[in-house]
Amino acid sequence: MASLDLRSDPVDLTAALVDIPSVSGDEAIIADAVESALREQAPHLEVVRNGNAVLARTNLGRPERIVFAGHLDTVPVNDNLPGHRTSSGEDEVLHGLGTVDMKGGDAVFLHLAATLAEPRHDVTFVFYDCEEVEADRNGLGRIERELPEWLRGDLAVVGEPSNAVVEAGCQGTLRAEIRLDGVRAHTARAWMGTNAIHALADPLRRLAEYEARTVEIDGLTYREGLQAVRVSGGVAGNVVPDEAVLAVNHRFAPDVSVEQAEEHVRTVFDGYDITVVDRSPGALPGLSAPATAELVRAAGGEVAAKLGWTDVARFAALGMPAVNFGPGDPTLAHTRQEHVRTRDIRRVTEVLRTLLAG
Amino acid sequence: MASLDLRSDPVDLTAALVDIPSVSGDEAIIADAVESALREQAPHLEVVRNGNAVLARTNLGRPERIVFAGHLDTVPVNDNLPGHRTSSGEDEVLHGLGTVDMKGGDAVFLHLAATLAEPRHDVTFVFYDCEEVEADRNGLGRIERELPEWLRGDLAVVGEPSNAVVEAGCQGTLRAEIRLDGVRAHTARAWMGTNAIHALADPLRRLAEYEARTVEIDGLTYREGLQAVRVSGGVAGNVVPDEAVLAVNHRFAPDVSVEQAEEHVRTVFDGYDITVVDRSPGALPGLSAPATAELVRAAGGEVAAKLGWTDVARFAALGMPAVNFGPGDPTLAHTRQEHVRTRDIRRVTEVLRTLLAG
Repeated sequence: MASLDLRSDPVDLTAALVDIPSVSGDEAIIADAVESALREQAPHLEVVRNGNAVLARTNLGRPERIVFAGHLDTVPVNDNLPGHRTSSGEDEVLHGLGTVDMKGGDAVFLHLAATLAEPRHDVTFVFYDCEEVEADRNGLGRIERELPEWLRGDLAVVGEPSNAVVEAGCQGTLRAEIRLDGVRAHTARAWMGTNAIHALADPLRRLAEYEARTVEIDGLTYREGLQAVRVSGGVAGNVVPDEAVLAVNHRFAPDVSVEQAEEHVRTVFDGYDITVVDRSPGALPGLSAPATAELVRAAGGEVAAKLGWTDVARFAALGMPAVNFGPGDPTLAHTRQEHVRTRDIRRVTEVLRTLLAG
Repeated sequence: MASLDLRSDPVDLTAALVDIPSVSGDEAIIADAVESALREQAPHLEVVRNGNAVLARTNLGRPERIVFAGHLDTVPVNDNLPGHRTSSGEDEVLHGLGTVDMKGGDAVFLHLAATLAEPRHDVTFVFYDCEEVEADRNGLGRIERELPEWLRGDLAVVGEPSNAVVEAGCQGTLRAEIRLDGVRAHTARAWMGTNAIHALADPLRRLAEYEARTVEIDGLTYREGLQAVRVSGGVAGNVVPDEAVLAVNHRFAPDVSVEQAEEHVRTVFDGYDITVVDRSPGALPGLSAPATAELVRAAGGEVAAKLGWTDVARFAALGMPAVNFGPGDPTLAHTRQEHVRTRDIRRVTEVLRTLLAG
């Protein structure tokens, strides 16, 4: 079994985790390594195994509990394993699959789990599987069904890459299809038909002219968006098409519910046949909650709005404040060139140590 | 070998041809039957075989020659063989694959070939293969290359379905693709990208607002058209797409060359990246040519503009007047419900007999 030294430098620990391949659905080896390391090197923690997730927590009777969550899986290998380093000191970079998304965050959490036997708050660590695939396989969803009490706390910190800046809340996302109908005809007698593709002109104009809201919540700025993500239509090179479909993705600030977001999209495309394909709520930043405020203080007061959707929203749906806080640039996630500045890993470790060691 | 009685009623002959399956590429049996019947029952004709085409002609030294062309192949069988009849008299209908496209026309030509030993004009009959597939397999193209003198004459009559009305000329057709570029980005940060699908709004508006010309030539009315026939774009449900493609089909009246038609499409979409995918010229109606005028007179003066593209244009490109004239409703071609009013077959026979018997 791969062996992990949780007390080692979190950068070395990140490199060790990166070198254990763990594509979604194939997390048994890394989960075994994490479980075994926690049982041996963090005897102060209660540890349970759930599928390929590993959960660990203190039971110190502190007034507040913070949940740290990190997924162990990665997207498929793309000629970017094993990891390697370039440069040194402040400029040091660790390259490889998972360095950003999100074994750097996992390493920080594992290091703190082993090295803080008496944290100021009770802590729960959740290392889970299948975050990079369909939502219904997500390990966090399974834990919510099978071990719900393990997710409860006063703040959730999800270690997804955030450039080592606390990102609060997240925007919601909604996908919808707009279906245009026409009447099929031969193009040589086009006036006998009605072209469904031509009918796209108006909804596309509405999209092009759409002015997205910019919303301030708790001093953070969220920029919404409404974008076409797919268009299709056509029967044959000599046929006036009788159907066209336009798929759009709406990203909405967390002051809006999914129901309101859906109503908004229906208003923008008023008069059209709209089907909502999927929708996920956003999460309010919740910066006024005491544990969140404490984390922001520990981070030197720096906090930003999270625009993308992450598992933060799952915790928000449980009624908990939740933030993203992890090393790495999220725009490098899922790229072959995935790499992290190692000072991000050190920075996240330091902020969380300040939060927990007091 | 299937045996054909060319002197029988052209409706019976149509039914006999329909019952010999002849999907494109598989015309050997029907070509054998046609060749054998012509050799035995029309001894006044010179007959040659070319691949699965059969050519026959008089050599009477008449001042004018009329070429009659009909393809022997059909689109694939669609549970619509063998043929059958319903109703009777004026309302009689013959059902089955090829009844419209175009064994009714073939039957009329074969019947005239056998029953008019001394026509008023020299005549050439061309029964050919592979009209329903890619243009480069078309039997008429092969004959043009290998036996070009067999296509020469003062008028070509193509027996494609035209509701038993002489249809003169044909419109040209041109297909083009308009490619829109953008910049890819995550939809959560859409302002970092440029949406190529949104950029379709303007060219689609141009299409929706396009006013097609209606052109009079030789007293016939041609309605042009410019239609989107396909649209595609999209990367993933959370990605601002960086490419979209719009395919259009332009049908243009025969007073315009393909070069002018292309220039026109480029002007309509001025400022865009346009690729012309294919283009075929139209054919002028040529109603002032003596043989054409004679045919129109024989048809009682009734003549209409051909809007679709047919092999008429191949003869027009050889500098000959050419018309469509055949039984059946062209909108039933290629449908499972293909059927022809038998009075159309009798009408076409009668008009052509008037033209040739004088």
